Amino acid sequence: MGGAGVTFGVENLPYGVFSLPGQSPRVGVRIGDDVLDLAAALGDEVFAMPYLNPFMALGRTAWREARERVKEAAPTGGHRVPLDQVTLHLPIEVADYVDFYASLEHATNVGLMFRPGEEPLKPNWRHLPVGYHGRAGTVVVSGTPVRRPCGQRLVNGRPEFGPSLKLDVEAEMGFVVGVPTALGERAGAFEDHVFGVTLVNDWSARDIQSWEYVPLGPFLGKSFATSISPWITPLEALEEARVDGPAQDPVPLPYLRRAAPWALDLTLAIEVDGEPVSAPPYREMYWTPDQMLAHLTVNGASLRTGDLFASGTVSGGGQRGSLLELTWNGAEPIKLSGGQTRTFLEDGDIVTISAVTRGGLSLGEVSGQILPAT
Amino acid sequence: MGGAGVTFGVENLPYGVFSLPGQSPRVGVRIGDDVLDLAAALGDEVFAMPYLNPFMALGRTAWREARERVKEAAPTGGHRVPLDQVTLHLPIEVADYVDFYASLEHATNVGLMFRPGEEPLKPNWRHLPVGYHGRAGTVVVSGTPVRRPCGQRLVNGRPEFGPSLKLDVEAEMGFVVGVPTALGERAGAFEDHVFGVTLVNDWSARDIQSWEYVPLGPFLGKSFATSISPWITPLEALEEARVDGPAQDPVPLPYLRRAAPWALDLTLAIEVDGEPVSAPPYREMYWTPDQMLAHLTVNGASLRTGDLFASGTVSGGGQRGSLLELTWNGAEPIKLSGGQTRTFLEDGDIVTISAVTRGGLSLGEVSGQILPAT
Repeated sequence: MGGAGVTFGVENLPYGVFSLPGQSPRVGVRIGDDVLDLAAALGDEVFAMPYLNPFMALGRTAWREARERVKEAAPTGGHRVPLDQVTLHLPIEVADYVDFYASLEHATNVGLMFRPGEEPLKPNWRHLPVGYHGRAGTVVVSGTPVRRPCGQRLVNGRPEFGPSLKLDVEAEMGFVVGVPTALGERAGAFEDHVFGVTLVNDWSARDIQSWEYVPLGPFLGKSFATSISPWITPLEALEEARVDGPAQDPVPLPYLRRAAPWALDLTLAIEVDGEPVSAPPYREMYWTPDQMLAHLTVNGASLRTGDLFASGTVSGGGQRGSLLELTWNGAEPIKLSGGQTRTFLEDGDIVTISAVTRGGLSLGEVSGQILPAT
Repeated sequence: MGGAGVTFGVENLPYGVFSLPGQSPRVGVRIGDDVLDLAAALGDEVFAMPYLNPFMALGRTAWREARERVKEAAPTGGHRVPLDQVTLHLPIEVADYVDFYASLEHATNVGLMFRPGEEPLKPNWRHLPVGYHGRAGTVVVSGTPVRRPCGQRLVNGRPEFGPSLKLDVEAEMGFVVGVPTALGERAGAFEDHVFGVTLVNDWSARDIQSWEYVPLGPFLGKSFATSISPWITPLEALEEARVDGPAQDPVPLPYLRRAAPWALDLTLAIEVDGEPVSAPPYREMYWTPDQMLAHLTVNGASLRTGDLFASGTVSGGGQRGSLLELTWNGAEPIKLSGGQTRTFLEDGDIVTISAVTRGGLSLGEVSGQILPAT
């Protein structure tokens, strides 16, 4: 949406997977409004694959070398294809998908709505980054339509079956693991394992979720689809956006202490049918992604190349990353142009989440349109 | 343990993945104390693979034909290798792993212990099979040692970091998906998608779990390891064990009604260091596996070949499938021989779960030894 050609310069260079008609998918890098065909440009078979995983598994030295070579090759004009001629595919083969709950404001808002009359934050929330596993097999690339899910939800206090009436979005940042660990080991430094970032829309059926989620957490209210952006921005492109995370009280246990600044100063933007509805900042998220990675593996759980972990809804500074919060569970509809309002998503709605760093680097966008239930 | 040669006859014929020293893993069928090398015996390349997934993806007709051919080939003695000469591998490439909570007795017991003073069953429990996603990347084959996990748990009401002091087992039945579905579709008949069953030990760190699990469910208390048996018993071998599931009150919503009897009349056995501690029956589990599959996909979540879903702890008739229940959260230690007792697992303990149908068909066993924390 506007200005893409300006912002996808040589300081950016995100990776994705593309295909031309009749050809098999392979790895490309976005430069302006073109895709650089990496297998052709660099002559390396690791880029002739339908996923980034084989390249991501190679580790930091290989990532750095490839980026240097891309920086040389990209401006020359060779091996470039206009973006509007290609199909973009899911860029990673997702191994396990974990979703965290790292925004203090989001967790507080949800607690107030789902558990009225109780302390909104559970006792554990400030001691560890709360998270859960989601469904890896239903992670889809931006542009994939999202069918409104059916399921059980309460109607007048009784469970009934039907299409979700509270279909929502969650604007999140996602982190993609390149370098795995063995079972029983803890992860090392964040930047030694994590290849890059993506944008995540963790579509959520609030009525299904609020009925099913006790005591084992969200399940069908989330598992029908999770969309990610087609471009994975490597950590190396985000050096200028790195900032210290917010102060934490109480001080976390030693395994969760931050060794380096991995909060990212960037702002998300949520649009419904092209109209901006919120612009939450990421930098104030209570739990930073390095803390999430440390927590995820502290019990010896192994990482695999292609693991995806997401921040949870980014809400902060009064800018809310979900319709649940923006409309206070439907009680306060948001206004769109032409006299339209929204509580939750309607069939046909297109939701687009984008993000830009403080330095103006675009992380692209993740978009999806709601299809009616069948 | 004992009698395996008797029970693995031609009416059984479970599938696994084995290797001989210096050779690559491939598919075999257990017959007595031998493994039948299927690629060699049947001359089909789908069995020369390191996982069952390509074969499982072929569907019921192919499964039936293969079983008929194996029944002819198995007794002849050709292409058979003694079991004690082979290494057994993880038989399936696990796509997504879901764990349910289908035992009324288990859910009641856990509720009583984790939420004292509250109604033990949450309001949703009798309306839908409660479940959650687990970590697919840490599913391991029987025999893999399990490192005691470290993590946060409460000590005198304060979170501290250290090795789990309440390491537990959960004896479960697992169901393996062969035939996938497209995103947005519901699964058809159970037997059209599910290839077979396996035994599951859903290792659980109760102290980590009870601190972390609100509000998004179990995470690090489970994700360090989940063990499955090396042999996948095809549904076709379990015809004689099929029975109607227990009556359900209230009658479930139409999408959850049982179309055919898919409760299985079999009994699990849990041994700690070779001593039997419990023998829970599977047939009385409140939610049957066909109901779990219907629920899992009713929101349009797709299935992939290799999806694994498990029943949750099998407890029933006073036979409990976890130490949490057997010792009532450590308050009532169980007695082993030699004056030994157990509340939770100690380093070096070997836990073995096995199962036999009412007709005497063995499902083999899943075993693992606890290594000390590092």
